[in-house]
Amino acid sequence: MLQLYFFPMACSLASRIALMEAGIEARYHLAHIWTKKVLDDDSDFRVVSQKGAVPVLVLENGERLTESAAVLQYIADRKPELGLAPPPGDLDRYRLQEWLSFIGTEIHKGFLFPTFWYKDDASKASARERIWQTVSVAAARLNGRDYLVGDRFTVADAHLAWALMLLRSAGVDIAQWPELVDYLARMHARPHVKAAVGIETQLWKKMAA
Amino acid sequence: MLQLYFFPMACSLASRIALMEAGIEARYHLAHIWTKKVLDDDSDFRVVSQKGAVPVLVLENGERLTESAAVLQYIADRKPELGLAPPPGDLDRYRLQEWLSFIGTEIHKGFLFPTFWYKDDASKASARERIWQTVSVAAARLNGRDYLVGDRFTVADAHLAWALMLLRSAGVDIAQWPELVDYLARMHARPHVKAAVGIETQLWKKMAA
Repeated sequence: MLQLYFFPMACSLASRIALMEAGIEARYHLAHIWTKKVLDDDSDFRVVSQKGAVPVLVLENGERLTESAAVLQYIADRKPELGLAPPPGDLDRYRLQEWLSFIGTEIHKGFLFPTFWYKDDASKASARERIWQTVSVAAARLNGRDYLVGDRFTVADAHLAWALMLLRSAGVDIAQWPELVDYLARMHARPHVKAAVGIETQLWKKMAA
Repeated sequence: MLQLYFFPMACSLASRIALMEAGIEARYHLAHIWTKKVLDDDSDFRVVSQKGAVPVLVLENGERLTESAAVLQYIADRKPELGLAPPPGDLDRYRLQEWLSFIGTEIHKGFLFPTFWYKDDASKASARERIWQTVSVAAARLNGRDYLVGDRFTVADAHLAWALMLLRSAGVDIAQWPELVDYLARMHARPHVKAAVGIETQLWKKMAA
């Protein structure tokens, strides 16, 4: 059985959504990204992955895969019949990779990460300078489209849905982009997205309490 | 013929290396990432790509592909017989995606970008806090290996070679990681890498003059 190391509401939520959309059962391990401890047994998360970051997907053969862009494509390809990623060789597969990269680099690492991890306000402000332009690129893509790639839900949507949820916590109001408000509502209306977010919201509240 | 919009020594250098390693002829257009002008005709680069960022690969059918992770995989897949990316479905293909993501998010967007674009020293210092740990992950991977993925050169190596060259300009001395020093020397010894770097170094010097 696949195993996913995650932290509630961190980017590993996209991998949980992908697993649930794919109908793949998995064991979930909460890894605390601040203390670097695995909650199950208080062991050192850096033994699981030197990066100390989520997601980490442990395959049946014991190999460990990290980085959302890789983990999400791996999960999608386990159930090719579901179309959670366009097939290899299809131009849309590169579009999927393009969006996974854009969300991972520009929205996550360029803005969300600094906002939550940088310590001083000047540094957070530096990271914030381009976020309007960045989010506008995603909004423009979703003008007249239901999904980021092709005409169905893919793992790129799992990734973007997560990023948009976090933008709110990071003080960026997406209300100025109606395409994104509608898109996020469509995503939340999906039973598996709703269930995944529900699980992690509960865990997050419990940890914060 | 494929066309690549690039800026000298920016991350699009990895795409140039990939094209040259693949033996694919292409037309190269210099896009100034500060002024957002295409050098050919002083036109607005944002018309080519709303992102105003390199690389942009223009396909024969006119479609435009952005983001190094997508462009590099696209180029590699044009010449599958060369093994510049492991074949789809192979576990090593996900390893390739993992490294492309790590280099793009942690090294490039998490450190190089802030170092070159943030305006104040405090913000640059915030971005610098984790770079030792980040680079150590790549060094650990290359302990006893010649290449990032499998036993041959892939586009992930084109990406990392570029990132390591830029680390020097960003004030991170890789001499403390002998694996990386050796690796970069191996990369520079490849005729196509050497030629690509030579072209862009000349262009960079001309622009800076």
